[in-house]
Amino acid sequence: MLKINSNYKQLKDSYLFYETAHRLADYQKEHPDKNVIKMGIGDVTRPLCPAVVDALKKASEEMGVAETFRGYGPEQGYDFLREKVRDYYAEREVELELSEIFISDGAKSDCGNILDIFSKDNLVLVPDPVYPVYVDTNVMAGRRIIYMDANESNDFLPGPGEFEPGTSAEDAAEGPDLIYICSPNNPTGAAYDREQLKEWVDYANEKGAVILFDAAYESFAEGDDIPRSIFEIPGARTCAIELCSLSKTAGFTGTRCGYTVVPHDLVRDDTELNALWLRRQTTKFNGVSYVVQRGAEAVFTPEGRMQIKENIDYYKENARVIMDALEDLGIWYTGGVHSPYIWFKCPEGMDSWTFFDFLLKEAGVVGTPGQGFGNNGEGFFRLTAFSTRENTEEAMERLKKVLAK
Amino acid sequence: MLKINSNYKQLKDSYLFYETAHRLADYQKEHPDKNVIKMGIGDVTRPLCPAVVDALKKASEEMGVAETFRGYGPEQGYDFLREKVRDYYAEREVELELSEIFISDGAKSDCGNILDIFSKDNLVLVPDPVYPVYVDTNVMAGRRIIYMDANESNDFLPGPGEFEPGTSAEDAAEGPDLIYICSPNNPTGAAYDREQLKEWVDYANEKGAVILFDAAYESFAEGDDIPRSIFEIPGARTCAIELCSLSKTAGFTGTRCGYTVVPHDLVRDDTELNALWLRRQTTKFNGVSYVVQRGAEAVFTPEGRMQIKENIDYYKENARVIMDALEDLGIWYTGGVHSPYIWFKCPEGMDSWTFFDFLLKEAGVVGTPGQGFGNNGEGFFRLTAFSTRENTEEAMERLKKVLAK
Repeated sequence: MLKINSNYKQLKDSYLFYETAHRLADYQKEHPDKNVIKMGIGDVTRPLCPAVVDALKKASEEMGVAETFRGYGPEQGYDFLREKVRDYYAEREVELELSEIFISDGAKSDCGNILDIFSKDNLVLVPDPVYPVYVDTNVMAGRRIIYMDANESNDFLPGPGEFEPGTSAEDAAEGPDLIYICSPNNPTGAAYDREQLKEWVDYANEKGAVILFDAAYESFAEGDDIPRSIFEIPGARTCAIELCSLSKTAGFTGTRCGYTVVPHDLVRDDTELNALWLRRQTTKFNGVSYVVQRGAEAVFTPEGRMQIKENIDYYKENARVIMDALEDLGIWYTGGVHSPYIWFKCPEGMDSWTFFDFLLKEAGVVGTPGQGFGNNGEGFFRLTAFSTRENTEEAMERLKKVLAK
Repeated sequence: MLKINSNYKQLKDSYLFYETAHRLADYQKEHPDKNVIKMGIGDVTRPLCPAVVDALKKASEEMGVAETFRGYGPEQGYDFLREKVRDYYAEREVELELSEIFISDGAKSDCGNILDIFSKDNLVLVPDPVYPVYVDTNVMAGRRIIYMDANESNDFLPGPGEFEPGTSAEDAAEGPDLIYICSPNNPTGAAYDREQLKEWVDYANEKGAVILFDAAYESFAEGDDIPRSIFEIPGARTCAIELCSLSKTAGFTGTRCGYTVVPHDLVRDDTELNALWLRRQTTKFNGVSYVVQRGAEAVFTPEGRMQIKENIDYYKENARVIMDALEDLGIWYTGGVHSPYIWFKCPEGMDSWTFFDFLLKEAGVVGTPGQGFGNNGEGFFRLTAFSTRENTEEAMERLKKVLAK
């Protein structure tokens, strides 16, 4: 008699965006004429840039002609795209071999799938607040999870050893096997600097742990002090895997392309993790659509780079509008500078969901309650810079108005 | 200290296509002027049909305009495509709900990923010879595997109870929990008829097992007696999951789109498997590229249907050329009628690899040695109908010539 994976029974319902959508729907039903501004979900709004659209169309044409048609491609991605990714890293003096770069259909897929190569018995460390996928994918595999203590006092950038209260002394001493770091962070927008990341790399190397570094928001990082790749940090090649995505970089949330870097120097149990991941991907994946890979290639051309920068600057200016409003209001926040997310303290001591309702009903603005990302998110709130300029400005005017009351 | 998934150490090297490519490369190095005809790999050669190319281009254009741009889509796929799949099944009087259809980036991905929802303790039954992915994905999870005995005497279509010699009496009596059926089959091209599939459905329902039905080659099935979906069989809704792909149907091997059907009636451990799969997909997948889904939608339009039929008919005519040659030569074969694969007995008692070398060196034709698909494949050989007509005819002329010697 077949049995299911009983770990699925341990999953909590994915309540957050379901509940925000539900409360929004109720409100809109009661107030059909109200113009509600949505700054909750982390999805982009600007269209694909012309260089990408042209590449997609050209590749589609090629697929219709026998001489240029492509069947099965390499599961790891075409070299034309891997070379572009390699060169992109080389700009920051990160030298990668092509065989260390795996093209994927997005960071979310790889974030789940990469766990296949690790033992179920590994102890996992995730930040609180957290992107829920890190937790759910490990619960599905039956792994035990402990939490970093990200909070206002450490600017939501916990270092090694900053475990959440309640972590057993044994787990704290022994240390985790798998460490999730997302920087610039989702949901908080906070970004580790070079020195802070070095501490994590040293810790992981010392413990024999592996860092899963989520670099999905790297293109929002500004200046030289905030690494855009963990491989900018000495020592990372022996302890880190990097997951990246073109979703936020180039508006690929609906186009689906990313990449994962697994250095050959990353060895555990006398085994190159690169070889394991290659085996996983060649067995359970058949590569990303050729057409999409050509679109992704265009992101890295000089023309594409210029065009996507315009979009990122647009979102960053939205973030600036939000930050200015919070500063005017004297509200504590982080994020926004290196990130499309602004994470702030709910005003007047409100809890996350009370402020969600307040903001929706009083200002007609939808955000995301911090509590939905973990206990440490209680009393905080996330707004995204992915709306239009007009809506962002209007939303901030409304926020200022209702809080001035 | 992090540990890897030690099951990966149990994987056998994926030797088959590596070795055939290696022997081919050696031969070509020695005979650079020889025109070698490749009929080994199951990849298509005909380009995407015009309806699909037009749809891809149109969708690419939409992505470049703010008003029609699409960000994150539903992980299960857009309704516009799921409706087309539903209607396609309805033509064969299979009624599906939209929520039973999950759009994927191909059957290979889902074939691996679906295992996530099942316990590691389930006993797995696969045919021998077998598409290696069924085996490797289960080895990675640490599941125990037993084999069906597909052979010449049952036309490579084993029924329930036909286990390979060496299967323990206990396993045979207890029966498997997960059953893989691929029909029309890869690698043999053999296809179960309605009555034979009914035996499997009844067996699975009786044992509480789940059939993973690989329908990737359904569009090659001819006539009413060969089901194109397991859901054409009464009782399948309580015991089967169907994996399907547009790779062979519409030449999507490099474009990547398929679908998986999980009926709501399929319940194990008091849990709807549909709900588990939905949770897996929403957690570890972010849907198929919008552009690709529009391309897939075009496959199901009247225009698309007509155009893909031309391609399938072309390949089927190639299969006919191969079958005619084998009949002329008096060689036993199966497949070819409902399949792009022809599976035949190596002539003159040669083993699979001896015949591979013979065919390459004497005739300049590359195929796939049956032994590479399992012990029962020894002494058999696979040719595919995915080449051009000219090459297929030329290859068969050469085969007839070298065997007439």
